[in-house]
Amino acid sequence: MFKNRASKKAGLPPGTMVYVGKEQAGEATVSMIQYSEQEAEEVSVDVRNLQIAVPENKDRVTWIQVTGVHDLALVENLGRIFELHPLVMEDIVHTMQRLKVEDYGDYIFAAMRAMHPYDEQICLILGPGYVISFQENPSPLFDSIKERIMKGKGRIRRLGAGYLCYALMDIVVDSHYHVMESINERLEALQEDALEDYDRETIHGIHALKGEVFRLRKSVWPLREMIGRIQRSDSGLVTRDVSVFFRDVLDHAAQLADTVENFREMLASIQDTQLSSLSNKMNDVMRVLTVISTIFIPMTFLAGIYGMNFKYMPELEWKAAYPVFWIIVIIMGLGMVWWFKKKKWL
Amino acid sequence: MFKNRASKKAGLPPGTMVYVGKEQAGEATVSMIQYSEQEAEEVSVDVRNLQIAVPENKDRVTWIQVTGVHDLALVENLGRIFELHPLVMEDIVHTMQRLKVEDYGDYIFAAMRAMHPYDEQICLILGPGYVISFQENPSPLFDSIKERIMKGKGRIRRLGAGYLCYALMDIVVDSHYHVMESINERLEALQEDALEDYDRETIHGIHALKGEVFRLRKSVWPLREMIGRIQRSDSGLVTRDVSVFFRDVLDHAAQLADTVENFREMLASIQDTQLSSLSNKMNDVMRVLTVISTIFIPMTFLAGIYGMNFKYMPELEWKAAYPVFWIIVIIMGLGMVWWFKKKKWL
Amino acid sequence: MFKNRASKKAGLPPGTMVYVGKEQAGEATVSMIQYSEQEAEEVSVDVRNLQIAVPENKDRVTWIQVTGVHDLALVENLGRIFELHPLVMEDIVHTMQRLKVEDYGDYIFAAMRAMHPYDEQICLILGPGYVISFQENPSPLFDSIKERIMKGKGRIRRLGAGYLCYALMDIVVDSHYHVMESINERLEALQEDALEDYDRETIHGIHALKGEVFRLRKSVWPLREMIGRIQRSDSGLVTRDVSVFFRDVLDHAAQLADTVENFREMLASIQDTQLSSLSNKMNDVMRVLTVISTIFIPMTFLAGIYGMNFKYMPELEWKAAYPVFWIIVIIMGLGMVWWFKKKKWL
Amino acid sequence: MFKNRASKKAGLPPGTMVYVGKEQAGEATVSMIQYSEQEAEEVSVDVRNLQIAVPENKDRVTWIQVTGVHDLALVENLGRIFELHPLVMEDIVHTMQRLKVEDYGDYIFAAMRAMHPYDEQICLILGPGYVISFQENPSPLFDSIKERIMKGKGRIRRLGAGYLCYALMDIVVDSHYHVMESINERLEALQEDALEDYDRETIHGIHALKGEVFRLRKSVWPLREMIGRIQRSDSGLVTRDVSVFFRDVLDHAAQLADTVENFREMLASIQDTQLSSLSNKMNDVMRVLTVISTIFIPMTFLAGIYGMNFKYMPELEWKAAYPVFWIIVIIMGLGMVWWFKKKKWL
Amino acid sequence: MFKNRASKKAGLPPGTMVYVGKEQAGEATVSMIQYSEQEAEEVSVDVRNLQIAVPENKDRVTWIQVTGVHDLALVENLGRIFELHPLVMEDIVHTMQRLKVEDYGDYIFAAMRAMHPYDEQICLILGPGYVISFQENPSPLFDSIKERIMKGKGRIRRLGAGYLCYALMDIVVDSHYHVMESINERLEALQEDALEDYDRETIHGIHALKGEVFRLRKSVWPLREMIGRIQRSDSGLVTRDVSVFFRDVLDHAAQLADTVENFREMLASIQDTQLSSLSNKMNDVMRVLTVISTIFIPMTFLAGIYGMNFKYMPELEWKAAYPVFWIIVIIMGLGMVWWFKKKKWL
Repeated sequence: MFKNRASKKAGLPPGTMVYVGKEQAGEATVSMIQYSEQEAEEVSVDVRNLQIAVPENKDRVTWIQVTGVHDLALVENLGRIFELHPLVMEDIVHTMQRLKVEDYGDYIFAAMRAMHPYDEQICLILGPGYVISFQENPSPLFDSIKERIMKGKGRIRRLGAGYLCYALMDIVVDSHYHVMESINERLEALQEDALEDYDRETIHGIHALKGEVFRLRKSVWPLREMIGRIQRSDSGLVTRDVSVFFRDVLDHAAQLADTVENFREMLASIQDTQLSSLSNKMNDVMRVLTVISTIFIPMTFLAGIYGMNFKYMPELEWKAAYPVFWIIVIIMGLGMVWWFKKKKWL
Repeated sequence: MFKNRASKKAGLPPGTMVYVGKEQAGEATVSMIQYSEQEAEEVSVDVRNLQIAVPENKDRVTWIQVTGVHDLALVENLGRIFELHPLVMEDIVHTMQRLKVEDYGDYIFAAMRAMHPYDEQICLILGPGYVISFQENPSPLFDSIKERIMKGKGRIRRLGAGYLCYALMDIVVDSHYHVMESINERLEALQEDALEDYDRETIHGIHALKGEVFRLRKSVWPLREMIGRIQRSDSGLVTRDVSVFFRDVLDHAAQLADTVENFREMLASIQDTQLSSLSNKMNDVMRVLTVISTIFIPMTFLAGIYGMNFKYMPELEWKAAYPVFWIIVIIMGLGMVWWFKKKKWL
Repeated sequence: MFKNRASKKAGLPPGTMVYVGKEQAGEATVSMIQYSEQEAEEVSVDVRNLQIAVPENKDRVTWIQVTGVHDLALVENLGRIFELHPLVMEDIVHTMQRLKVEDYGDYIFAAMRAMHPYDEQICLILGPGYVISFQENPSPLFDSIKERIMKGKGRIRRLGAGYLCYALMDIVVDSHYHVMESINERLEALQEDALEDYDRETIHGIHALKGEVFRLRKSVWPLREMIGRIQRSDSGLVTRDVSVFFRDVLDHAAQLADTVENFREMLASIQDTQLSSLSNKMNDVMRVLTVISTIFIPMTFLAGIYGMNFKYMPELEWKAAYPVFWIIVIIMGLGMVWWFKKKKWL
Repeated sequence: MFKNRASKKAGLPPGTMVYVGKEQAGEATVSMIQYSEQEAEEVSVDVRNLQIAVPENKDRVTWIQVTGVHDLALVENLGRIFELHPLVMEDIVHTMQRLKVEDYGDYIFAAMRAMHPYDEQICLILGPGYVISFQENPSPLFDSIKERIMKGKGRIRRLGAGYLCYALMDIVVDSHYHVMESINERLEALQEDALEDYDRETIHGIHALKGEVFRLRKSVWPLREMIGRIQRSDSGLVTRDVSVFFRDVLDHAAQLADTVENFREMLASIQDTQLSSLSNKMNDVMRVLTVISTIFIPMTFLAGIYGMNFKYMPELEWKAAYPVFWIIVIIMGLGMVWWFKKKKWL
Repeated sequence: MFKNRASKKAGLPPGTMVYVGKEQAGEATVSMIQYSEQEAEEVSVDVRNLQIAVPENKDRVTWIQVTGVHDLALVENLGRIFELHPLVMEDIVHTMQRLKVEDYGDYIFAAMRAMHPYDEQICLILGPGYVISFQENPSPLFDSIKERIMKGKGRIRRLGAGYLCYALMDIVVDSHYHVMESINERLEALQEDALEDYDRETIHGIHALKGEVFRLRKSVWPLREMIGRIQRSDSGLVTRDVSVFFRDVLDHAAQLADTVENFREMLASIQDTQLSSLSNKMNDVMRVLTVISTIFIPMTFLAGIYGMNFKYMPELEWKAAYPVFWIIVIIMGLGMVWWFKKKKWL
């Protein structure tokens, strides 16, 4: 959905930092990890008195993980240290930002959306020898990477800042799988319902799911183009070795996009099927009504005839009248039934 | 909607200036601001006796804000001073113009549409060291920029005419948010209605909203291409520093376009849902009719039988006939109910 | 619609001139205007004895306006004089031609469709220093241009053959506005009908309008590509000065295309709305039937019971039976009404 | 439709020649025409003992017309003489081939589909100084070209093998017009039916026509790309002079594609209209039922009341009861009629 | 459908080999064939103790066929010998992989999907002088190729590793035909049903088939791009001679894609037709009900009138009343029938 908050900013001078997002009470924290192929250490950072310098030794990689982007002062300080463009800082704190990757020459800025455990904006800045990640909530999203770096597992310590950036993005992309599975389950449930026993709930369920798939698509579709832009970037920040890995995350993003398309097609198919089913069911209902009415209405008319009180109605006096009446009625009824059977209405 | 006025001009020689728009009585005004990084001054301009020269000192930026484009003489005078192409002047006074950006080498011409506070055409001309803005109504649209220039706030005084042009465009693009919010509200109201309690008003409401979203799309979709064309222009009017800002407004335009697409998808989904709901409700109605008819029509026939006046109807004389009749009727009724329950019609 | 006549030609050797179009009785005429910036003169031309030479003085522009392309001999003579390709001559007399622009190096050939006052094919040949226009009907389509040339108004006498070609095209493109306005009016009328009071006529009206819009689209859509091809042509026939004007007519063509798309969207929306309205109206109808039937059918059954002629029906003898019957019936009726109110069917 | 025969070949080594098509009994024939600008002669060819050499004199054009591609030996012999690629030979005898144009450097291979008089695959090979055409049925498709060559009519003898290839393709493309006309007629008939008097036949007719148009599209759509590929081929087989003619056949192909699109749009519109009409007609039917039922069901109930046999029903004894009953009934009826008129149901 | 298993891997470090697929019990096997133009031999391979070296003699082609990719150790060993990228190895054992072709410079990696006899992932690695194929199930898919190599049939022994890779891909692409035929059959059956006698089963059948066609499309659509990428690869692994063959398999892939599109169109058309048919059938049902009701309800009312027990009803005493009543009733009935015939409801 379109967020009202987006308009909060309309008219403000560009580059004005305004936190756009849910009200936040938690304190912002910054964690910093520095590592080379041989060693890794976590450096404690005082949020109030930021003592970070732009890393100069390109052999060491510095990862600064900022949690709590509502702390404008913190973001501003970082921005000054790393000479970030005002628009980048504006985008970081505007947590309803459109997904994007922008190459500022010295660094690459990426705004993405994690889906799990929190649905939140993740911003990444990849510079020479450093990566800065911005998130709002203190989520364990990147804990596995931290662990891999500290324990020196895998090739993460060997391949530099580009690989770290890739690893973070991979996590963010993979966070969509969780949501997709839950959508998948609801979709399958809906499908059963839609084919078996449909009612207002199913109809509303389809409508709601459509909205969610649409929202998901908005967060999944730009991924391919974004990641491709990083991969093809000629800034030298992404080496050839790392580029292969970006191709892999590109592939995951493409698979996500395929799956979302799949959901859309299925929802459309379910809705079509439901409409056909509704029509078919209505047909059944109407057929029953028509058959019953068509059989009994003429008979009732006949009975009404002989219920009239005219003085001179010769049939009334006949001895055989009543049985003959029954015979006629039964023949009429059977004839109708035969006719309906022929028309396949019964 | 297609405007009849557009055809007013068909057949006229090209470059003929004809004011196309709502009749206007107000007098045209011209305000002129000249500023450099150090100072800014507002120069008063006599509309009747235009004494403006093309600015020669490229360090100073001149912003000429024309209000009231129905004043053909004024536009023509300005056109002569700044050597504008006749087609540009024709476009400025044709306020139902198609959105466009055209690079005339010496200057760039842009025709855009502001949405709020007035729905009107805004034309911008970006030349070396000057920007001319044309609008019909004396709206406070650009007042915040004027203030920023005069007070020297932000980087507006530092970055030259290209930045001013960007700032004006940003305001125009942001003016769409207001309309989008109102559409969003109506959309959400409609959605509630469509799912709960639909009637002629809802149906007409969807139709009307569709038209508005379509109109909005026409004003939003070309923005991206237009702004991109300015950004990529090789005329030297937009410097590299300013180009980053155009990328930002490009992003806003893309977000507007996404939102409009969103609206369209939602309207389509609401309409589909409504159609399903209508079918479903009809099914409910028909089921009630069918159940009642199917239960009572055969019983009524039976009652009709024993209301006949045949002389020789043995059942009429039986003592137990009446209670037996009731028993049969009740069994028939319960049987029907059981059958309908089995068919899940009850 | 697909024209049967198109197949008349299937199997003939290419370049065979066959007049394809409505039977024509009128005589063909040729009018020739020669002008330079200083002067303009109309030269009388004898159709039977064509004495035209390819203009050699490029400073003078020659405009040959041919009316009545069913005169194959005339077209053939012109073709020989100006060394036109056989396929061009074939296209000129095939008045159901597909819209096209073809660059033959020495000249550019354009086949367009005017919409008003006649719906007819207009062919233009732009060569160095000359323009030849072909039309079937003696329409006043180009009279305004003739007048402008003769009176020396505007820049038409100054900008050469390319500008003349532009001016003619502009007229042809603008001739669509007339048709668009009439479609617009019918569309708005249909819209009213579709929302208020729909019947067979509205349904057929929508179908018919769809067909017309589709036909219009076929004549409007190729325009942009065609004009763009002339504008970008590197034959030197269109100078840089004139190219700006072609950009303007390109813009008109784009606006026409937008409007046609608009029509399509509106028709689709009207049809969707109409379908919803029909369903909604049906719902109303069915609800009335169901409510009435459901209230009265059980009551009628009850009245039928006490119309039976069983000898032993104790209720018949009771003094209070009749009033009690009424009370029961009224309670039943009110109960039903209450139930329907609760279900919002009343 | 998907042809089962296509799978016959799955799993066979590539380049294996298998005749795929209808069983054929007729004998294969080869006719050979050699011509230069001055003269043309038809050379008799013995199919069993093929004595053809690759033409060396490029001034003479050789056209070898093979009828009966089920004769694998014949095709294989030709293939050996002209050094055709095994895949080309495989494609020639696989008469359900996908349309294609392939440039093998020495020659260009084209697989097309003629529509009339036979719906069959036509393969063409354009080499330096020769054209080989392959067809299955002895159809008079190319007779007009043969005649033109033998009689020396037109420019066919002057423009070499490329022009001959163009002429053959032009015939094949034009053969679609016949089918299009027949579809057009059926479409117009369907349209009438769909709007006036629709039933099962119309519905099935639309479905069937949709299938045919779809099939036609498959044979028409690739034409443009195919012919364009020949035209742009840099093999030198198509000279500049001939290229203009290919542009013309390209245009015909584009027109065919437009017409097919037209058919699709019309079918879609007819179906939409039909659905609206069906809904509208149902509305009419239901309105009649509802009006009749709503008027008479309450009256019948009233009549039922006074048909009851209660002993104590004071109204029965009143003298004026019967006329009063009629008055009430008539007022009720008129009231209903008035109400329905107000609701526009009558 | 979206597979839950896909998420199993989310969060794992990239390049981690995890077998994703059905649980497998069978033992993995490796078969190795080495051949040159002169000779071919099958070399036995011990899976547990892999003794394979990267082939150095480029004149001999080595084909290593791995069956059972759940054996991670085996895949890892091969990966180490042939220096495969960790991501390639990860993809090989992830049998729900997205289809892809990736050029790693030294070798090309392709992940495809065979459809018959097993629906399984086939991975191919084409390196200089060798091809490695990975499959899960011991299917006879590639047996025909093995035979051709061993018997020296066709050009397979002559054209090197590129041709072998082509031959394997061709088999994989052709394996889709089997599935397509079965879908085609079901589609035709559905079509019959949908037009003749539709019910819940047909509706569900269409829904199910849609899902299958959608799944098929996902496996067919990427083929063209994938094969095109191999064909255009500039790694030198695919020679010019072999490239022609890849063009052929590209063509098969395009034909598959066309067929799938065909299926989609047909399903859409069947569904539209079914909806029309349902509406039409409902119309028939309602018309019968309306005709019967409209004829008999007023008559029944009339009979009810004369069944009333008012003491003073003059008609009851008339001698001619009963016959007159019948005459009126019959005239009413015939009038109704005439009116319905006029409205074409009968």
